[in-house]
Amino acid sequence: MTREVLSQIPSLPQQGLFSLFIKHTSAAITINENADPSVLTDFESIFNQIVPENMPFLTHTIEGPDDMPAHIKAAMIGSSITIPITNGRLNLGTWQGIYLCEFRNSGGRRKLVATIYG
Amino acid sequence: MTREVLSQIPSLPQQGLFSLFIKHTSAAITINENADPSVLTDFESIFNQIVPENMPFLTHTIEGPDDMPAHIKAAMIGSSITIPITNGRLNLGTWQGIYLCEFRNSGGRRKLVATIYG
Amino acid sequence: MTREVLSQIPSLPQQGLFSLFIKHTSAAITINENADPSVLTDFESIFNQIVPENMPFLTHTIEGPDDMPAHIKAAMIGSSITIPITNGRLNLGTWQGIYLCEFRNSGGRRKLVATIYG
Repeated sequence: MTREVLSQIPSLPQQGLFSLFIKHTSAAITINENADPSVLTDFESIFNQIVPENMPFLTHTIEGPDDMPAHIKAAMIGSSITIPITNGRLNLGTWQGIYLCEFRNSGGRRKLVATIYG
Repeated sequence: MTREVLSQIPSLPQQGLFSLFIKHTSAAITINENADPSVLTDFESIFNQIVPENMPFLTHTIEGPDDMPAHIKAAMIGSSITIPITNGRLNLGTWQGIYLCEFRNSGGRRKLVATIYG
Repeated sequence: MTREVLSQIPSLPQQGLFSLFIKHTSAAITINENADPSVLTDFESIFNQIVPENMPFLTHTIEGPDDMPAHIKAAMIGSSITIPITNGRLNLGTWQGIYLCEFRNSGGRRKLVATIYG
């Protein structure tokens, strides 16, 4: 969602930091490979393998089998990213793009807060 | 520990960033669901499942079976969080709260550093 | 690589934040125990256990069996760290050091961006 984020922010300072924060506990923000869509597919499959639904010892099950795994995945990935700003642009690597990771089956709208420092 | 953190910091600027850093390698800081205590219980159970003690190939065992898993969990969760400040308050989502994740069985006191930018 | 990073940055302000960002999606930056080299060895072994190569369902395999696991490990660890600056120094804990986590078998040179705020 790099392009979507960039379209929503004003012009950037010459140097600084860009912080993006998600106001939710079952979705997360990260930076990952932006070129090949198969990365996105495998990203989801691997996290479902590492944090499967219906572990027998879970107690927080009232919101559905996808809820507690979503909290864990969100904690692993994190609720914010920080990207340096250089020469008025996000200083991302060639293959880096911003991902919003939706970990619920039906997550609804998600709210983000961007902060620019320079 | 959101309330405990807020009670220790001075008044916040109207806009900015709040950074919280933990000076340890076997505990971590994250943001997660703040409402239902069962999330906390399951959080610990799932991480113990993903990073169990006594993996046979471990070499860093001198500090006890919970030490090396604690370092890994700490690296997965991270040593700092960054939260936007809006209208003089931490701009957290409705269900978001700050967690200190203690990954040792007897971790002792933990030192944090808060930085406010605005 | 704490010493290497410190040798490349100018003098730090009295107070502020230090941000270090890696411009890649198959390597990551974290803070972990700096004292015992066995932590480094086990760090790699455990992550290889949690995110093994050759999971049968993977589709992003064209860049080799270590590529997709590297993206996942990088997302788990993260592409940046933020460290408070206090009294003109990085305010790290006694055992904390900066790690560059190379998750490819042959990763090549890696580019980092440091930002100092104060």
